[in-house]
Amino acid sequence: MLTHPVDASIRVRYAETDQMGIAYYGNYLAWFEVGRVEWCKAQGFNYRDMETDDGAFLVVAEARCRYRAPARFDDLLTIRTALKHARRSVLIFEYRVLNQETGQLLATGETVHVVTGVDLRKRSLPEKYLRLFGLEKG
Amino acid sequence: MLTHPVDASIRVRYAETDQMGIAYYGNYLAWFEVGRVEWCKAQGFNYRDMETDDGAFLVVAEARCRYRAPARFDDLLTIRTALKHARRSVLIFEYRVLNQETGQLLATGETVHVVTGVDLRKRSLPEKYLRLFGLEKG
Amino acid sequence: MLTHPVDASIRVRYAETDQMGIAYYGNYLAWFEVGRVEWCKAQGFNYRDMETDDGAFLVVAEARCRYRAPARFDDLLTIRTALKHARRSVLIFEYRVLNQETGQLLATGETVHVVTGVDLRKRSLPEKYLRLFGLEKG
Amino acid sequence: MLTHPVDASIRVRYAETDQMGIAYYGNYLAWFEVGRVEWCKAQGFNYRDMETDDGAFLVVAEARCRYRAPARFDDLLTIRTALKHARRSVLIFEYRVLNQETGQLLATGETVHVVTGVDLRKRSLPEKYLRLFGLEKG
Repeated sequence: MLTHPVDASIRVRYAETDQMGIAYYGNYLAWFEVGRVEWCKAQGFNYRDMETDDGAFLVVAEARCRYRAPARFDDLLTIRTALKHARRSVLIFEYRVLNQETGQLLATGETVHVVTGVDLRKRSLPEKYLRLFGLEKG
Repeated sequence: MLTHPVDASIRVRYAETDQMGIAYYGNYLAWFEVGRVEWCKAQGFNYRDMETDDGAFLVVAEARCRYRAPARFDDLLTIRTALKHARRSVLIFEYRVLNQETGQLLATGETVHVVTGVDLRKRSLPEKYLRLFGLEKG
Repeated sequence: MLTHPVDASIRVRYAETDQMGIAYYGNYLAWFEVGRVEWCKAQGFNYRDMETDDGAFLVVAEARCRYRAPARFDDLLTIRTALKHARRSVLIFEYRVLNQETGQLLATGETVHVVTGVDLRKRSLPEKYLRLFGLEKG
Repeated sequence: MLTHPVDASIRVRYAETDQMGIAYYGNYLAWFEVGRVEWCKAQGFNYRDMETDDGAFLVVAEARCRYRAPARFDDLLTIRTALKHARRSVLIFEYRVLNQETGQLLATGETVHVVTGVDLRKRSLPEKYLRLFGLEKG
């Protein structure tokens, strides 16, 4: 259902569990970030370089997660990430978290990002990234 | 705008910042949890006891956050929490995160919870909590 | 036993528990950091300003913690922090973590810091901080 | 230098960085845990099962880390773990954290564990684990 998704793998750490015996809900946002970083690599660039070399930051403006089934310690998860929507200064990613062993869908989510400079002010994506986010050069 | 909100205070930890120089977006969900725990205390009970003594758990089914302005290291924040909606086995909380010094609204959010037993299966709130969540005893 | 200790308060978050039902051991290092920040305030300065205004960073070179008794969700803790040793470019802090309700000692620890510039290279403490760390001005 | 070490891989997450632009020092303890879990798998068992099936928990009694060089966002790290010492109810692990690309040693550490039951009271390792930790069956 996701368009051109990219998969990353995560193994649930003990640190990520809580006393309910399941992964704490806040960790999913960090896992989404792992998914985004992997999505960038699959497009041929490192998000790290986008910050360092090009001074462009993807600041999170909104995040959402629906938790369908718990993830547990030592579970191997797939973080499936896709670009849902792109404009020159706004990007929306969507995610699915799956148990890699059973295939069960554990969570779905979405993050909205604003492109900014190091000063956190809105700017456009650097030219060289436009094509990588499916935006024509202009 | 929140109905009968309860305020908790958080000071942003160095551990919670990221290399963008602002609080990492995943931490807000942990802050919402701090807000919920404080909301429970304001109603006259400890969430801890609800788990331990009554075997009722508020499992997160959905979480959302809109980030309006960054929180920075050592900022003193207000986490303002209100109960938005309650049914016998579903609770919805909403949140505002404010900079306590400037009054600026930094983020808004919402969490949806399902009441479960220790087995993570859906159940009703224990009788004694119904009134505390604004639900009539039945 | 600590010299001129400064106390900070922490309430254990649900996010900080693990499936053993106790606070995860890594969190204590973040709590020590909360203690250090409070210690700085008690000397009359904000660590934040030391970084921002004076370009001096206290990079951690070593950390140690002995866990004597578990901390649990919603426990109110005292993080008691003292400066153990100071040189112009090395600082050692020590810590005690206490359950505020029972007075029980839960953990002890120590962190060694090197003073660096923003480039993470060793430097001396800025002059104006020497007295605050018990070092004579030179 | 470590005896029969086992390697695990970690990629530094954005969530794990702080405003100094490097991985926050508390995260290393979570990475050590990833190393321990992998070490257990290399001996032929899952730590998860040790808790669930055999009711034995490795509670951390002490942790230490020396930070030699910073780890940065997106760095691929090796967490090299070895059993340093084992008794029936005390285990000591040691760790090296290496940058996988450059081979640079970033950190060294040690954790001391007490074997407990689910009640967190000291007990002996279950018989079937003795050999796996290099202890003769008695």
